[in-house]
Parts: sequence; structure tokens; C-alpha cells
Amino acid sequence: MARALQADLTLIDGRLVPGVVVRVARDGRIVSVDEAGSRTPTEEGDRSPIQRLRGKALLPGFVNAHSHAFQRLLRGRTEYRAHGRDGDDFWSWREAMYRASELLNPDDMEAVCRFAYLEMKLAGFTHVAEFHYLHHAPKGARYADPVEMSRRVLAAADFAGIGITLLRVAYQRGGPDQPPSPEQLRFVDPDPEAYFADLEATEAGCADDGARPVSVGIAAHSVRALDGDYLRALASGARDRVVHAHACEQPKEIEQCLAETGRRPIEHLADCGLLSERFSAVHATHLGEGEAQLLGDAGASAVICPTTERNLGDGLPDLPELMKAGVSLAIGTDSHARIDPFAELRQLEDGERLRTGRRNVLASAAGEHVAPTLFAAASSGGARAAGLEAGAIAPGLRADLIAVDLEDPALGGLVGTRNAENAILAALALGGHTGLVSDVWVGGRHEVRGGECLRYRQATEAYRAVVDKVFG
Amino acid sequence: MARALQADLTLIDGRLVPGVVVRVARDGRIVSVDEAGSRTPTEEGDRSPIQRLRGKALLPGFVNAHSHAFQRLLRGRTEYRAHGRDGDDFWSWREAMYRASELLNPDDMEAVCRFAYLEMKLAGFTHVAEFHYLHHAPKGARYADPVEMSRRVLAAADFAGIGITLLRVAYQRGGPDQPPSPEQLRFVDPDPEAYFADLEATEAGCADDGARPVSVGIAAHSVRALDGDYLRALASGARDRVVHAHACEQPKEIEQCLAETGRRPIEHLADCGLLSERFSAVHATHLGEGEAQLLGDAGASAVICPTTERNLGDGLPDLPELMKAGVSLAIGTDSHARIDPFAELRQLEDGERLRTGRRNVLASAAGEHVAPTLFAAASSGGARAAGLEAGAIAPGLRADLIAVDLEDPALGGLVGTRNAENAILAALALGGHTGLVSDVWVGGRHEVRGGECLRYRQATEAYRAVVDKVFG
Repeated sequence: MARALQADLTLIDGRLVPGVVVRVARDGRIVSVDEAGSRTPTEEGDRSPIQRLRGKALLPGFVNAHSHAFQRLLRGRTEYRAHGRDGDDFWSWREAMYRASELLNPDDMEAVCRFAYLEMKLAGFTHVAEFHYLHHAPKGARYADPVEMSRRVLAAADFAGIGITLLRVAYQRGGPDQPPSPEQLRFVDPDPEAYFADLEATEAGCADDGARPVSVGIAAHSVRALDGDYLRALASGARDRVVHAHACEQPKEIEQCLAETGRRPIEHLADCGLLSERFSAVHATHLGEGEAQLLGDAGASAVICPTTERNLGDGLPDLPELMKAGVSLAIGTDSHARIDPFAELRQLEDGERLRTGRRNVLASAAGEHVAPTLFAAASSGGARAAGLEAGAIAPGLRADLIAVDLEDPALGGLVGTRNAENAILAALALGGHTGLVSDVWVGGRHEVRGGECLRYRQATEAYRAVVDKVFG
Repeated sequence: MARALQADLTLIDGRLVPGVVVRVARDGRIVSVDEAGSRTPTEEGDRSPIQRLRGKALLPGFVNAHSHAFQRLLRGRTEYRAHGRDGDDFWSWREAMYRASELLNPDDMEAVCRFAYLEMKLAGFTHVAEFHYLHHAPKGARYADPVEMSRRVLAAADFAGIGITLLRVAYQRGGPDQPPSPEQLRFVDPDPEAYFADLEATEAGCADDGARPVSVGIAAHSVRALDGDYLRALASGARDRVVHAHACEQPKEIEQCLAETGRRPIEHLADCGLLSERFSAVHATHLGEGEAQLLGDAGASAVICPTTERNLGDGLPDLPELMKAGVSLAIGTDSHARIDPFAELRQLEDGERLRTGRRNVLASAAGEHVAPTLFAAASSGGARAAGLEAGAIAPGLRADLIAVDLEDPALGGLVGTRNAENAILAALALGGHTGLVSDVWVGGRHEVRGGECLRYRQATEAYRAVVDKVFG
């Protein structure tokens, strides 16, 4: 359905502009963006009455460029007393995560994905890049439909009304010279032929419905889980698909890669031909000299997941180094310890202040205010990483949009004062929270109204049943 | 007015307990806390019908143990392009803060404090310790009533319906051998006699109304702003008042203290006799060997302000070291870049994960789950730092209480599952946000209902006028 939206402020090219009218066509794309006073006549859009969004700012929808939806189950469950023998770290957390993953059947998986995607949508994410590796039945048995689990993930996104890039994960082994552990058998496609057969079967069953984008991409799980031959085969079969890989999250992964290949993870991925402008390195926390430049020279992206990276004790990436190298940044909520895009944005800058003991570090690196850099990571950077024509409020792009409440105390006393646009944008980027998101449109469809989405309550019961199965 | 509250879950002794009935007497104190099935007959409480708080958890109110309310004006205003000559840091931020402070008259101060305190109350803070140093007119001229500004701060807390410990700041100089700068003249009481005269005048004008606690304490601004004689005079005149001091926030302050006294800040404060169980070190970010133990041996508190400490590039304190030394922890929102108690709690633990690369660090340090440790810092630890008989849901304490919404997506799918209490508490502590706070009682008075407080809207207009005066 065609529509025309006019918020008090609209985020265009990194600025909050008053009075803008955004017209959306029936195909879910933006047809015109008119600043106050100007007007683009369009046959279709002109017929829609203007919907005034009073007390709101209209922003491009956020893109969640790295998600393991099923890990939503672990929220609050691994934050108790340290549960590893020697305290608790990434690897003891991974054991807990594997235990949960073993119990999930396709119905469970769909219920959990529905719930996680609905929470994302309520939080302002209009698209998710799902890094999906729970392919097979426990112990690695194939389902009757070998891509059953991928179909369920896509069905969940359809139910939730969120765009999705399903990144089907290639997984081969437990590590260098190490077979997969029993829990990892569910993830394994033993060779690239098997992998590509399933990838193509997934693609065949996946219809982009126009307004809500659906596509399939490749995920090379990590240099730990794939050997060089497998990585090269993924690179040569990738064609125009996006390719993501976990890289440099934990020091141990880097040591193992150096021991096996003599190269660090990004260097090794480059050697295997995987880097391109369609490539995203997920995390990129511990980069060696020159690795950021390898990514930048290829036109690649880095997907930073600050909440998860802190939750798991990964550490802080060097963002100015990535930006200087020309790497496009995106954000992800990854393990979903929280789902709050504003939290991810804020932590990009606050991590730099922690690393350096200085202020406005990303603003200095970008040569502009910090807020536009952060919002670009959440929207246009995410869209680029997900292979999506969206991420900005501009004609021709998909109308993935969110309205945020300018009357929330987080922004209190800024709106209605003089010369406040930069301060509002900074307070949003560094002090926003999910409670600000009042309305969400995905491909022009009005999916969240007044902070509510009826399907969220519907999805809760089935989700709780899975929680009880895993933890009850 | 007497009342009886029954939420789905109530936080008692670090556990979420179902079915508890909390009875509050007309004097604003809790008279009984009955777990399901048990019942304490009390003449007065028994007459109140039980108010069921469905879908809510009842928690002790949060204590904001370090606030400079007027700095709320700077929210969003110092997060642009780096504005110092060599980029931006704590000290360039301080210049911007001083510029704003110079413009405020008593009416402005009251308007800004009202607004900041109302935002705190909406966020779940039931009490604030205001570290107040804007005492005099610009250039240091005395107001006709020398404690005019302190009275305005107290009046603002009264208007906002929040408890307050007004920490009247002693300020003497710009630094060792350095007179106050022109902007600092507003802060200065040149000698301890002048300071105590004003402190006592403030106390004389300050009436605790019973339900809403009001008291006056001492703030020794810092070892930078006060020489040893002044610090010793504060210690000997403190009597039973609480004493707070900024300490070890920035490395430069420590270097200056070592150069002037040969001692580090906490050592110097100890030498001057200031440490006691009524003392709080604010920040305690960069402690030298033995300084945590000095605080712990004295039974002192440390007030950590993670949002501000990150915003200003201060760094991360070593919390396990403080805990091991027996230091009581509290939190503060300090510069009010955000006002969100959950954000402060979460950052206590996530800072440790960043420092150490491990998980559940505070849980290991405390020998228990992390969430009770965090909530204790926000409530009982804060109450201790503020000299307040509150901070827990227990008979005899003031009924400072908040209700949080268990149906928010941040907790989605946890409530209604088996054995979920620990997970709910962890998800609240590590994933909560201001939008969860639906109701607030201060000394038994129902101040926030359904997330709304009418006085907040009332206070906005006067606040905006001050914003326009400072930044317009």
C-alpha cells in the first residue's frame, strides 16, 4: 500500500531535517523525499494522504548484520555464578551454548527464531543477516528435507515480518586436525559439494516477496572450522552472493590459524580468495598489522557486535584503524544477550573512549560528528553487509523505516530548543534505547505501531515451551 | 498513606521471591514483608487492601550516589566533532562544562535540577546524592542569601519528589599553587570557617519531611581543589555527616597529588583523616597498590559512575580489588550523559569482562550470582553512601520502591518458564533499561504511575528556556 509519512525530523545524509515528506510506493520502495517547501510530483504517491508523525523522528531501519537467533535462549542463563572450572570465559560459554543447541528440533528452531526476530523488529531492526549453522538433526543425521532448518528460519522471518539474508554456514571440523565434536555434527557439511547443494536448495525454496527482502548468502564459519581447500571452494563458488566469516574474535583462534597456516585469519581468508566488496569479517576484534588494510583494499565490511563481544570477554576492536583503511562498518546483536541497536551504536564510541582515554574518537576518525557515523553503521553499513538495497531514506531504496519518540526523557529538553538537531542526534546515538522505537515499516508495511506488534505476544507461548525444554 | 503491595516477584536478599506482600505505614516505612503463606499481623497495615502489581517485579528503589544535576544541560552537546585543539578529552570537556555553569542563575539552577531529578525518578532512582558546587554568583560574588543555590537544589528535589542528600562541596583552588580560575570562583569557599558556616546555614533550612529523606553532607571536591589543611579541617568538623570526594578519576590528578604531597589521592585523604565508614570515594578509577585496602579498612564506599567515566575517557576501575578489600560499592549517573540505573549496573560487569577477557568476573569476586551484587550496589550500597535508611525491602526501612515491567521484550520468554528467577534477575541487571520502570514509590508515596509523572511535562518548558540561554 502506498503511503506518505511526515515526521517532525527525518534523518537524511547524517542530518535531522524538519518537515520532510517521504512517499512510499505500493512496491515498498521510497519514491520521493521532499524537504519542507519542495515537492516531487509522483503519480502514485500523490494520492496518499500525508500521515503526520508528531513528536517523532523518522530514521532508516536498522540492519542486524550478525545474528545467531537460537542463542536468544541463553539470555540471562549464563550470567550466574561462574560455571567453568577455572571461572568463566568464551569457551565455557560455548559449551553452554552447544548444550542448548543440541536439544532443538525444527519446530523449536522456528519458534525461537520467530520470537527473536519479533524482538528485533520491535527494537527497530528491519532486516537480519542470520548466520545459520544448525543444519542437521542431532549427531548429524540428515532431515528428510536436508534444508528443513533453513526453511524454518526463513519461515520465521516471514512470520515476524522482517527482511532476512540467510547466511548458510559452511562448517567442516572442530579445528585444525580435529574432527567435529558430537555437538558440532549438526553443523557439518563435510565437503563443498554437499554445502553448495544445500545452499542451492535453500535458494530454490526462497522467494523474495518484493516488499520484504529475502536472500541467501554464504557464511564461512571461521578459519577454525574450515580448512584452506574448503575456504577456496567457497570463494570460487560464491558468485554474487555476500560472504561472511567470523574472524579474530578470540586470541586462541588466531594462534591456531598461525600454527596451521603461518598466516593470521584475515590474511588466510585473503589468500583463499574470499575478500571482496561482498565480504564481511564478523568481530575483527584482534587484527594484526595490515589486516585492516587487507579488508579495506578489498572494499570489505566489518560487523562489530559490541554487546556480545563484551559479554563474552572478547575485547575491543580498533575502529579508527578499520575506518582509516576504508572498511565499511556494520553492527550485529549476535548472541542476543540484549537486542538493542542503540546499545550497539553507543558501545562503538564508548569502546574507543575506553581504549584511548580520549573523547569523540570516532568523530575525529570520521572527520564529522560521531552520530552520523554510528547511524550509518547501523543502516547503510548493515545494508551493504547484508547485500540489501536499503539503509537510507532516499528515492529508489526500500522503505525500511523506524519512528523514534522525541518526547522520551532520553531526549528530554532537547527538542524544542534552538540549534538542537546535532545534540538530538548525538543523544539518540549515545543515549537511545529500545523504548524509543514507536513504529516500524518494513518495505513500506507498517509492522510495529505504538511500540506494539500483536504477533510478539502470539509467539511468546511457543518460545516459552522451548525454554522449558532446554532449561526447565 | 498506608498501603500494601503485592507484585508477581519481589527482590529480597538478592532473590526474586513470588507472592510477597509488602506493607507500608503512613510514616513511609515498610512495616512487614510477608512471603506467600506467611503473614505478619500489623494493626495499621492490615487495614489497607492489597494492590496487586500484575506482570511486575518490585525492587528496592535505586540510589543515585553521585550527581551534578546541572550537567544534564550538556547531554548531546559535547558529543560532536572533537572540540579541543588536540582532539577531545576530560579536560576539554571540563572547559565546555564550565562555560555552561557560568551562565546559570538561581532560577536556572532550580529549573535544571527539577528536570534532572524528575528524569531520575522516572528512571527508578528514589534518592540522589547531589555533589553541589555552584554556590555563588558569577565571579564569586555572594548572593544575599549565601546558601541561595543550595536552597534551590533542595527545593527542586522537593518539587521532583525525590529523596536527597545534598553534599555541599568545599572548593578552594584551581590546583596545587594555583588560584581558582574565573569560572571556578563560583565554587569557592576560601576557608573552612566560611565553608562550615554555609553548611550549617544549609542544614538549618532543610527539613526532613519524614517520608522523603532530606539531609546535608560534606563533599571534599578533590585533592586538586583542596589543600591538606582544608581537608583536615573538613575531617575534624564532619561529625556524623557523610563525606564524599572525587578521587583518582584521571591520571593527571594523581601525578599532581604525588608532586604536591608525595602521596596518592586516597593515601592523602587517609592522612588527612577523612576515611571512615561514612566516606565515599567517587570514581576510584586509577588506584595504586594498597589504596583499595585503605578504603576497605576504613569501611568506606566507592561510587562508580560507568557511563560518565566512559564518556569522559577516564578508564575502568578494578572492582574485584575493591570488593576483596571490603569496599562497599555504589553507582552514580554523575554528568547525566544518560540517566539509566540499569546501564550503570550492566557496565560494572561488562567493564570487568573488558579488563580481563573473562566472563562473570564480579560473580566470581562476590562468590555468588552477579545480579544480586549489582542490585546491592544500586540500592543498599547507594543508601549507605548517601547515609540513608533504605536500600532493601525489609521492615523498618523507608519504602523506596520501584516496579519493573516483566513483560518487556528485554525479559521476554523468561517469565512463565520454570526455574527462571535467577535468569530474570540476570537479564534485568545486564539488559534492563529505563523503559522497564513503570511505578516508583518514594517513602511510600506513589510518585510514578505507568511510567508517567505529570510534573515531568510541567518542568520541561522552564528547562528548555535554560537550554536556549546556554546554547541557543
